[in-house]
Amino acid sequence: MATDSTSASREPGRPSSSTSELFGGLYARGAVAGEVADVAWLRAMLDVEAALARACVAEGLIPAAAGEAIVAACRPEDFDLAALGAEGARSASPVVGLVRILRERAGEHAHHGATSQDVMDSAMMLVARRALAPLLADAAAAADACARLAEQHRATPIIARTLLAHALPTSFGLKAAVWMSGVDEASAWLRDVGERTLAVQMGGPVGHRDPAIAARVARELGLAEPVLAWHVVRVRPAALAAALAALAGVLAKIARDVTLLAQDEVQEVREGGAAGRGASTAMTHKRNPVAAISVLACAQRVPALAGTILGAMAHEHERAAGAWQVEWGTVAELLRLTGSAAAWARDLLEQLDVDADRMALHAGESPDLGASGVLIDRALAAHRR
Amino acid sequence: MATDSTSASREPGRPSSSTSELFGGLYARGAVAGEVADVAWLRAMLDVEAALARACVAEGLIPAAAGEAIVAACRPEDFDLAALGAEGARSASPVVGLVRILRERAGEHAHHGATSQDVMDSAMMLVARRALAPLLADAAAAADACARLAEQHRATPIIARTLLAHALPTSFGLKAAVWMSGVDEASAWLRDVGERTLAVQMGGPVGHRDPAIAARVARELGLAEPVLAWHVVRVRPAALAAALAALAGVLAKIARDVTLLAQDEVQEVREGGAAGRGASTAMTHKRNPVAAISVLACAQRVPALAGTILGAMAHEHERAAGAWQVEWGTVAELLRLTGSAAAWARDLLEQLDVDADRMALHAGESPDLGASGVLIDRALAAHRR
Amino acid sequence: MATDSTSASREPGRPSSSTSELFGGLYARGAVAGEVADVAWLRAMLDVEAALARACVAEGLIPAAAGEAIVAACRPEDFDLAALGAEGARSASPVVGLVRILRERAGEHAHHGATSQDVMDSAMMLVARRALAPLLADAAAAADACARLAEQHRATPIIARTLLAHALPTSFGLKAAVWMSGVDEASAWLRDVGERTLAVQMGGPVGHRDPAIAARVARELGLAEPVLAWHVVRVRPAALAAALAALAGVLAKIARDVTLLAQDEVQEVREGGAAGRGASTAMTHKRNPVAAISVLACAQRVPALAGTILGAMAHEHERAAGAWQVEWGTVAELLRLTGSAAAWARDLLEQLDVDADRMALHAGESPDLGASGVLIDRALAAHRR
Amino acid sequence: MATDSTSASREPGRPSSSTSELFGGLYARGAVAGEVADVAWLRAMLDVEAALARACVAEGLIPAAAGEAIVAACRPEDFDLAALGAEGARSASPVVGLVRILRERAGEHAHHGATSQDVMDSAMMLVARRALAPLLADAAAAADACARLAEQHRATPIIARTLLAHALPTSFGLKAAVWMSGVDEASAWLRDVGERTLAVQMGGPVGHRDPAIAARVARELGLAEPVLAWHVVRVRPAALAAALAALAGVLAKIARDVTLLAQDEVQEVREGGAAGRGASTAMTHKRNPVAAISVLACAQRVPALAGTILGAMAHEHERAAGAWQVEWGTVAELLRLTGSAAAWARDLLEQLDVDADRMALHAGESPDLGASGVLIDRALAAHRR
Repeated sequence: MATDSTSASREPGRPSSSTSELFGGLYARGAVAGEVADVAWLRAMLDVEAALARACVAEGLIPAAAGEAIVAACRPEDFDLAALGAEGARSASPVVGLVRILRERAGEHAHHGATSQDVMDSAMMLVARRALAPLLADAAAAADACARLAEQHRATPIIARTLLAHALPTSFGLKAAVWMSGVDEASAWLRDVGERTLAVQMGGPVGHRDPAIAARVARELGLAEPVLAWHVVRVRPAALAAALAALAGVLAKIARDVTLLAQDEVQEVREGGAAGRGASTAMTHKRNPVAAISVLACAQRVPALAGTILGAMAHEHERAAGAWQVEWGTVAELLRLTGSAAAWARDLLEQLDVDADRMALHAGESPDLGASGVLIDRALAAHRR
Repeated sequence: MATDSTSASREPGRPSSSTSELFGGLYARGAVAGEVADVAWLRAMLDVEAALARACVAEGLIPAAAGEAIVAACRPEDFDLAALGAEGARSASPVVGLVRILRERAGEHAHHGATSQDVMDSAMMLVARRALAPLLADAAAAADACARLAEQHRATPIIARTLLAHALPTSFGLKAAVWMSGVDEASAWLRDVGERTLAVQMGGPVGHRDPAIAARVARELGLAEPVLAWHVVRVRPAALAAALAALAGVLAKIARDVTLLAQDEVQEVREGGAAGRGASTAMTHKRNPVAAISVLACAQRVPALAGTILGAMAHEHERAAGAWQVEWGTVAELLRLTGSAAAWARDLLEQLDVDADRMALHAGESPDLGASGVLIDRALAAHRR
Repeated sequence: MATDSTSASREPGRPSSSTSELFGGLYARGAVAGEVADVAWLRAMLDVEAALARACVAEGLIPAAAGEAIVAACRPEDFDLAALGAEGARSASPVVGLVRILRERAGEHAHHGATSQDVMDSAMMLVARRALAPLLADAAAAADACARLAEQHRATPIIARTLLAHALPTSFGLKAAVWMSGVDEASAWLRDVGERTLAVQMGGPVGHRDPAIAARVARELGLAEPVLAWHVVRVRPAALAAALAALAGVLAKIARDVTLLAQDEVQEVREGGAAGRGASTAMTHKRNPVAAISVLACAQRVPALAGTILGAMAHEHERAAGAWQVEWGTVAELLRLTGSAAAWARDLLEQLDVDADRMALHAGESPDLGASGVLIDRALAAHRR
Repeated sequence: MATDSTSASREPGRPSSSTSELFGGLYARGAVAGEVADVAWLRAMLDVEAALARACVAEGLIPAAAGEAIVAACRPEDFDLAALGAEGARSASPVVGLVRILRERAGEHAHHGATSQDVMDSAMMLVARRALAPLLADAAAAADACARLAEQHRATPIIARTLLAHALPTSFGLKAAVWMSGVDEASAWLRDVGERTLAVQMGGPVGHRDPAIAARVARELGLAEPVLAWHVVRVRPAALAAALAALAGVLAKIARDVTLLAQDEVQEVREGGAAGRGASTAMTHKRNPVAAISVLACAQRVPALAGTILGAMAHEHERAAGAWQVEWGTVAELLRLTGSAAAWARDLLEQLDVDADRMALHAGESPDLGASGVLIDRALAAHRR
């Protein structure tokens, strides 16, 4: 069963139907938004139900024919999202209606021994894992673009600025390598979360189900298998949220630098990009650093969302009354906004115009670039690993 | 020009098309979600352009016929949201495309002397003012429901619990009056923000436009008129965000109390509500406090969003590169989630089943209710003012 | 009884003994830190106990002699802070030890009918009200400094910068007036909170004490009298936190502008200040905008703290198990950091060196300053009201 | 050079002199507070200067005698914290004064080629690593206490509660094992951060110093060696903050459960602890869950602080003007509060009184404990690894 591929594909910049069309170009750029859209959640929920059915057949808990019927019924296109949502509002969980329908269509063996939280938690992890694929791809492309800048501008002097004042010369290549190393570091953290932290949930109503089922479902879905059910120990969502916020923070750093370097008084870099991007309604002579601004707008919304997840860990007893239900919308927003920031950052960095002459002008005569070359090589070597 | 009425009407519980259908029943209950949907933003933007055109005619800046043509062109149904969004992504502002189209259709006098930020800021304030109407109506209904509980249970003893342990008896009527006073206090703050803080923005590209235009547009739109343009002084969005978070916090307090009072070991209250609400997939004997849980889920997402607005106030110079663009999605979420919490809380309180016998049982014999009666009367008198 | 004066005086820049000496110069500048130090909390707690004793005498609840003995015993210098803290750790409240000692010294009538929360909440409001005096004084001085800049530079052209790019000319006077109006607006909000929202708490163990006592204690302490006890409705701490964060946000905006205007490539302003300020260990030719950096460092710590208060409003039943105890340290930090930001901002603005020639250079020839003059006059008139 | 040991020792519950005495018993319990006190920062800064001197000698950059003189001068007791703090306020960095004094005492070779940020960043990492020792020890003790509960109560039935309502029976042993696994998971994350993420900073004024010095200083101090200087890529502080917040979140979950289980209507557990703990001023019959409340009070202050660090990552160019200076106080608070939560949680869990009879009563007759036994064994095996 191939679940590693992403569940949906979208045009770049095309907002997902589960978010605003008006603001989606800004907040939902790239392919992540499609992976956290309603239909992606639905597909993930059904993938969990199907994997559970297979596991129950394998463990001899339900008949093979029942399992096949359930798997066959797990087709997203056969479900009405709005109806599921409306029914979900009556139980604070969209799983209730889905199970009711599955059982109507495929018999009572559906959702065998599971609880709503098993399905939602496993689906959330699946949604996250699928969303991480395009997100990390955009981040990797952004880092690659930095790597190219680091190589090309290995010997391009630029004045380093500390506390926003001129300090000493350095190379623009090293500046780009620092950007790259930040993206690489945060991406490595996020990739690690994707591989080791995103785990299946299959503990049953109160967390003490035989772990054999969880082990099988984990293998089916390509998720990690936890030692115990994590229904009320929310370190996994916290780890995901934190790693996303760290990446968003690095992207914001790069974008902030670009806006500062692009100032009229500095003009050391300038955004490239599609014709017409950066136009102003009131002042036609202006060209705005739209991609950098968009990175900043997305990235600045992320830390508080991570704080929400970190602050909603005190789940009561065996299922939280409120703190759990906080996660779905918040995790989706975290992925979408960080994904959008990564897509914008990729675009920004792949098309950045560098004015080496202006840089040299500000860097002064005969600048000493320190150990720039050595450091760029170290960073590139680490990047390529 | 009647702009006070709300711009859209929706069925309760029906998610807006700008948000998730799957989770909208939880996070987007009530009528506020419709007021922050894409179409409501578009309508607000066009209302601002129309009001500006009228103001420019009145000030003799553009011909009367031009003004009429612009007003006639400001019909939301004639604009394609997805196209505006896509064009907006090229300038980090959805106004650019809208102005281009308006000028194509109604001539170059459209958007006279204004800037994108004038339109977006004024539209955001208009969206907020319109969203506050159903939000405050739901909050008022919730407070009224508390008032009824306070009156009915003026002499119903209940054990007060401090640090989650039994303290001394009090009356459930006073407990309900405390809930009511909290909703009233936060609502009064929010109403005050709606009336005095939500102001027009019409300072032109850099904030130094003749204030006569702003004054006229403010009157047209029913928004406050600021002393100076507030394009980079974001106390107004901050005040809105904080007042919303305070209301959400009060609603969370009530919902937390209800979940605690509804515990099996306590059973002093129980959620009423639509047949079938509160069902469990795994354990059919359970009835869950769905409305209270939903209030908590929505309300716990709000403080961090308010923190985002408070943390994005350091706008650079005369228009921020990022911090400004943070606001649109965040303010929409703040309104939607607080509105959803209010709709859920109204439902919760209007249908709360109170078990006075269980309360009396825990309160002990001959309980002394202190000054409950006097205090309930004070609170009800304040509520009715 | 004069409680309006501030309770302690400190040298500017001298850290309070309740905070870090190493970092206090940065995070605890000005006189607010002294007002939120341990001794200020102790004094406030004792002022509440004394006011309660007087109120109980006046209401005939305790003998006059007992009242006098209690008032006489309420001397901060007679209490050992460390011992109170250690005893407080055994009850999650520093009031327990204080009451024990008061009763040992002045008899059992001390703390009559009150609860720990009455004393802590009233003391927190008193601490806040006293801390607001120097805080608002520093903010007012900062606004006055802006007013002087607005007057002096009424006709000084400067290029307005939108999205960090040159837009159109404006006047530096208007820019300063915009800063001033932001400080004025946030200060007015904060002053209003100080006068109307900071209220006494005197509801007794479960909130249903006869309100006559609260009314008398409120008058004694110069705090507002609430309709009901607000022991579990935390709109008041929320309002305080939000208004502080709004002021911090405005100060951050000004400081951000100064760091940008002070860049080597811009050099339109430069920090004045004490000889030796702004030195660099590694690069002796640099002069750093230390005051602006310090404003930003303090102000950026504030929004999350406000989010903590907004997120801790769901107090359980009649006293929260945890959410209440969150407030003391957080409110103290909020006041200290916002106060430090205000002290730094005052210093920054009172000593700002403006280079009108550089401004004119970037603004271009024959700049049109728009309605700058009219707007500056409007803003100054509002400032002087 | 032994730097692994903690730098200071304190009595449990004794507040550090750098924080409030009045509230320190609550917010600064345990040994972490001493590790983040002013004197610990000073010692760390001097350890960095000494390690740098040794590295410079080894690299032949400064004479051996100069190195010895510097190392000899790096004694915390010879420095005046208040004076350093006051001097630091003039440069937004406490390093400036320290370097001035070091050079006066040990000659101009002190601080060779370094910048303030090198020293502060390395010192912050050293402070964090030292503070993690007692913090992780308290967390480990808390987990061990859970392990003992899991073993002892392997077959003690308890009713599992979902959404705060009775669900199905489980064992209290498994509940304790879930707590344990949460503490173990978060501790493992934090330990990993301590070992791999806390890195030296030694890039010189603009980040391009020869990496040989950083490598040597890293070995001296027992910190990780970064590929590049991380002066403006703040993934490391972000990782520290996030892991601390995750641990605080797990501890809050446990404490929340205890407060719920300790309710008068439930009474399945009760806090043990020192005689006199949990007393109430107003109601002498009450016994409050003080340790659990204190865990919650500390832990609820942590997520926003983590959000502050995550939100302050957009450092400008080669040293941030404000965002960097945010970190010192915030990181100290994060460590202190999480440390206090861990110390309180250890105390709570080591002395928890379990009422197995009450648990059995609520769990009903012949409860099916599911796979509790198998799962407890799995969890204990993982705990012991």
